[in-house]
Parts: sequence; structure tokens; C-alpha cells
Amino acid sequence: MNINGTAYRTIWPGDDQASVVIIDQTKLPHRLETVTLRTVEDAAHAILVMQVRGAPLIGATAAYGLALALLADASDSHLDRSIAFLAKQRPTAVNLRWALEEMRRALAPLPADTRASAAFAKAGAIADDDVETCRRIGVHGLALIRAIAETKPAGTAVNVLTHCNAGWLACVDWGTATSPIYHAHDAGIAVHVWVDETRPRNQGAALTAYELGRHGVPHTLIVDNAGGHLMQHGKVDLCIVGTDRVAANGDVANKIGTYLKALAAHDTGVPFYVALPYSTIDWTLASGRDIPIEERSADEVLKLQGQLTDGSVASVAIAAPGSPAANPAFDVTPQRLVTGFITERGIASADRNGLLALYPERRESAA
Amino acid sequence: MNINGTAYRTIWPGDDQASVVIIDQTKLPHRLETVTLRTVEDAAHAILVMQVRGAPLIGATAAYGLALALLADASDSHLDRSIAFLAKQRPTAVNLRWALEEMRRALAPLPADTRASAAFAKAGAIADDDVETCRRIGVHGLALIRAIAETKPAGTAVNVLTHCNAGWLACVDWGTATSPIYHAHDAGIAVHVWVDETRPRNQGAALTAYELGRHGVPHTLIVDNAGGHLMQHGKVDLCIVGTDRVAANGDVANKIGTYLKALAAHDTGVPFYVALPYSTIDWTLASGRDIPIEERSADEVLKLQGQLTDGSVASVAIAAPGSPAANPAFDVTPQRLVTGFITERGIASADRNGLLALYPERRESAA
Repeated sequence: MNINGTAYRTIWPGDDQASVVIIDQTKLPHRLETVTLRTVEDAAHAILVMQVRGAPLIGATAAYGLALALLADASDSHLDRSIAFLAKQRPTAVNLRWALEEMRRALAPLPADTRASAAFAKAGAIADDDVETCRRIGVHGLALIRAIAETKPAGTAVNVLTHCNAGWLACVDWGTATSPIYHAHDAGIAVHVWVDETRPRNQGAALTAYELGRHGVPHTLIVDNAGGHLMQHGKVDLCIVGTDRVAANGDVANKIGTYLKALAAHDTGVPFYVALPYSTIDWTLASGRDIPIEERSADEVLKLQGQLTDGSVASVAIAAPGSPAANPAFDVTPQRLVTGFITERGIASADRNGLLALYPERRESAA
Repeated sequence: MNINGTAYRTIWPGDDQASVVIIDQTKLPHRLETVTLRTVEDAAHAILVMQVRGAPLIGATAAYGLALALLADASDSHLDRSIAFLAKQRPTAVNLRWALEEMRRALAPLPADTRASAAFAKAGAIADDDVETCRRIGVHGLALIRAIAETKPAGTAVNVLTHCNAGWLACVDWGTATSPIYHAHDAGIAVHVWVDETRPRNQGAALTAYELGRHGVPHTLIVDNAGGHLMQHGKVDLCIVGTDRVAANGDVANKIGTYLKALAAHDTGVPFYVALPYSTIDWTLASGRDIPIEERSADEVLKLQGQLTDGSVASVAIAAPGSPAANPAFDVTPQRLVTGFITERGIASADRNGLLALYPERRESAA
């Protein structure tokens, strides 16, 4: 999507075919900076410290990271070690493992001396595939937004609430949850987005608000506490969120706090949709109970990064000194609270039958 | 309660009988500082900028503020003007109006030359009454916590989740939601508190965590997004929150985000109690729909105050530059989601009959 009129992706191969360039998302929204990754360690570090984040982008970065690994050593053992090394950087996102298994399947049969260039090509294909998948999610989600717009007085915006960043910054382009929004906006439908700030890492305030603003989409930032109140007062027409992993029964793991918004949407009759690519479905999991939930550092709760009046970026301690903190990074929203899934193949009900109707080829293998 | 072993209240008369001293809560948790109020304007400012906050403490401060007003001019017209001036500083908290009407009732019949000293005495009585009311709330709430403790293995803490600060810092002493917790802790019952940070003003991180920590109560700070996940996983035995106004049907206005926690408690079978003094019940309101909800400055969402590594306190901008923000300060939790009320007279069901069973004298006047 555009940043002040210039089209960007979140990741692209370097001109030297021996590096990968990413937008450093830890610097947003205050600075737009890129980082060049030259080794598998660089790629793993970028995933771990969340210079890249978002399930699809983590997958694409891992794929390119494996390509960088094979440039250095294309042996079978290094292929295996590098996949294991990259896979362990983040435990919840299923796309990380998915992308690495795609890479293994494509590369393991090849002679070692052709693996590195094949890996770059395959990583590029995974990235391009993500763009096309997200574009299709947008086309299907656009129909939902258009249908709501047609029920509202002319000139009234459709109000969409989203949590965290399932935007183009979480993917390679378009985003998952934001793709219907960008498609609606680009199609001239009036749309306004309530952006949950999404503590503790504030991906909503720092990333979603940034990318919507830079593309020109009207939006308003709110604290995570506010969404229920807005829904009670008819100020939200539709919730769309992303997901890090969907179980075969339709349970949804997503950023901590998603469950609370789904409860409020259910209580107030607001449709609650989850946008996802096929690669986010974990067909091996019977329910969300079994999804591992990453516990992150207490420092993310106790400190916060922001910009001082002199323009410099600093970390401030915001809690009572000495107080401990807990930091579960994701929660699981039971499928009963989800109105439907928006995928690249269309809209599905949030249950096993809905998923299998879109992905019938999984009927044999689904948990 | 204690701050590092020294007993404090949040407000007390100055030795000169012409001033009032408060803890400046905008400086917590980084600095413990007091402010001396000498005029009604000082008191109004303290309420407006939230040097004092919390429904009961706002009431006590307004009462003392009126005493300061009458020191300067004890005429009928100044009494009326000062009440109106103080009442408009915060729109949601009913205690503000309640305390001022108590003052008017006591002072209006008196000759002007006795009003100032009578006003100091009456304000002191309102403060003392709040302490006793909160103590009784704690005694009744202690029974709830003790009953839960008896169902748990020996040595296992009762886990209480609370939102915002309905602690002693919100009152004169003890607190409302925290009073049962302090009583349990002081009685030797193992209790652990999940403290919601409570964006945007972070009263949980800055005040609740501070006061629990300084009194020695085990607690863990969490972001507002985390409570639902903890409840899903059996890590919360009981929620206790305060309230700014309860309607006659039992609907509860409280800090923005309370509704989301009540939904999660209801969904997971966790008891959800609201602790309040009688002065927080607005018998004139038939339901929570009619409670005015204060919309506060967008800056509270866009910026955040914290401590830099050099010990100085600074404000940092945390959102994408140029993004607008909305900031509703309270929400209304429907009474159907509330397990019960903890008041100074005992435990009530969260409905008209429950409230009237505790306050039968209101049967004629309740909406």
C-alpha cells in the first residue's frame, strides 16, 4: 500500500540477490527505516525482536531467512538446522512453520548447489502468493462492507473496529483484516476505522493508525477499553480482526484482547469477522485449547516507547516501581463468538463445516 | 492505609484550619507529593486535573473545597455559586453532587458567620463517614473472599481481578473495591490481585499497583486486554471493581473497559462484584442508559507519562503522528452481568429489589 503516495511492500529482496530488505517496524510510527538482512541470524533476530511481525510477514521473512542460510551453507544438515532455528523464534504463529515446511518441500529434493537461488525464488513466490491471497481476502470482504454501506444513509461511513495490526504491515501487502477496508476505501465507499491501540506493544496505535493514515483512510485511535462502549452505542457496524492461528473447529488465536471484543460484539449484535489466509488454519488442532500462548517479557507491560517533544524516541517506565507484570501475548476466541471467516476463497461460517466447505481438499486430514 | 509503613489518608485538613492537604495523584507512582489547597479554585482544579480522583475522594474534596469557598465569602449567593462551580468539574461521578448537597443542607440554614467553621467540620465528617463506609464494605467483602479461600487448597492465594483504581487512593482510606482485599490480607488470608493497567490514564499501573505494593499485598500488573484470557484459564477467582454511579435498576457506570471484564466474567463463570458506598447509588436514574459519559481529551490516548532512565518524568507521544483519537472515560455495565453489590450494609443482588432490600428507606423515592 502507499506511504504518503509511494507504494511499498514490507519485505523485498536486495538488488545483490544476497540480502533481504525489511521495514523496521520497531521504529514506526516515529521513523520509517529499512534494515538489510544478510544472514539467517539477522532474519531470526528480526522475527524475535519484532522488526517484522504479523503471521504472514513472519512466514515470508522466515522463507527469505532460509534462503540466506542456504547461501552460506546449502547442506542437508544446515537446511534442517536453519528451519528448526527459524521456527523456534515465535511459538504461536502457524505461518512460520507453514512457510518453512513449504520451503523444505521445495528445496530438500534439489542438489545443494542449486538450493540457494531456488530458495530466493521460492521465498519470492511465497511473498507474491501472500499478496495475491490478501488481495482476494479484500475482494470478498469488500462485499460485506458494501452490503452494510447500502443499509446506511448516503454519505455515512461504515464503522469498522479492528484490534492489533492485521494490516499490510503484518503481511507483504494489503493486509488481512485491513484488505477489505483498503478495497472499500479505494472503491469510494465511505469507511471509518476504530483502531484499538492494542497494549502492550501498541501495534494499533503505532502500525494500524500509521498505515491507514498514510494511505488516507479515515480512522480514530481508541484505547482497548473503549470498543465495548462504542458497540453498545451503535458506533461500530462491523469488527474485522486477523488471527495467528485458527483451529479446525474455528477457534481463533489472535492478539491478547481479541476475545473481549468478540464478547462485546456478540453481546451487542455487531458482526465479528476474522480475516485469514489458508496458511493460518491449523488443520491438526481440534480446538483452540491446544494452541500454545506465548508469554512475553514483563518489560513490555512495565515500559513503553514513545517520542519526546524534542523528537527523540525514549522508553518510559509507566508502572509503580517494583510491581511485577504478566504478559500473555495472545488469547483464544471461541468459534461461537465469531460471525464468520473472510478468506481468499470467500466467506465461511466459523466452524469445521464452514472451513471444509471452502477447503474440501482438507476433509481427510482435518482434526 | 500504609505507604511503606506510614499510615496515610488521601486528604486531611491543614493545621491552620484554612487549608486542605491532598496527595497529588498525578505524580504517582514516581513521586509521593502533597499539595495544599487554599481556595475553592484550588479544589476545583485538583478535581479537574485529577490530582484527586475516584468518586468518594472527589466528594470529600468538593466538601472541603466548599469550606474553603466559605472562608473567603460565606454569603448565600457565594454558597450557591461555589456549589455550582465545584459540581461542574466532573460530570459522571454522582458523589460530587451528593457531597455538595449534603454540605448545602447542613450549611444553608446557618448564619453566614458560622458557616466556614461548620463547613470544615461537616467536610471532616463526610471524610470520616467515607472511611467508616469503606471499612464496612471491606468487612462484608472479606466474607466473600474467605468463602472462596476455604474452597481452595491451603496456601493457594485467592486471585482477585480489579480494574482502574477503586482503592484507598480513590477514597479517603481503605478503598471500595480494595477494602475487601486489604481486610483479607490483614486477616492473613492469602490473596493475589491482578491489576488492570487501565488505559488511558493507567490508574491501575500507577495507583492500584502502587497502593497494593506499598501496603504489601501481592499483585501482578496486566494490560487491560489480558483479563479475559486469565479468566478463561481459571486464574481469576473473583472480580471486584468500583463504580462512579449505579442506577436504581443496578446498571453500573465505571471506568471505560469495565463492561468488557464483566462480559468475560459472565462468559467464564467468574463472580463479578461491584463495591460501592450508598452515596454512589443514583436513585433518580431508572437505568444506566441515562448516565452521562464524560468524553476526555484525545491527548490522554495519544500521549503517556512515564519515568525516563534518569529519573525524570516525561510525556511521550505513542501514536502515529496525525492520527485522531476518541476518549470516552466510562462505560455502563448492564446489571445482568453483575453478580452482586458489596455495600456498607452488606451484599445485594444487582437489581432494584436487591438495592431496596439494603436501603428500604428509598422505596418511595427510587426511580
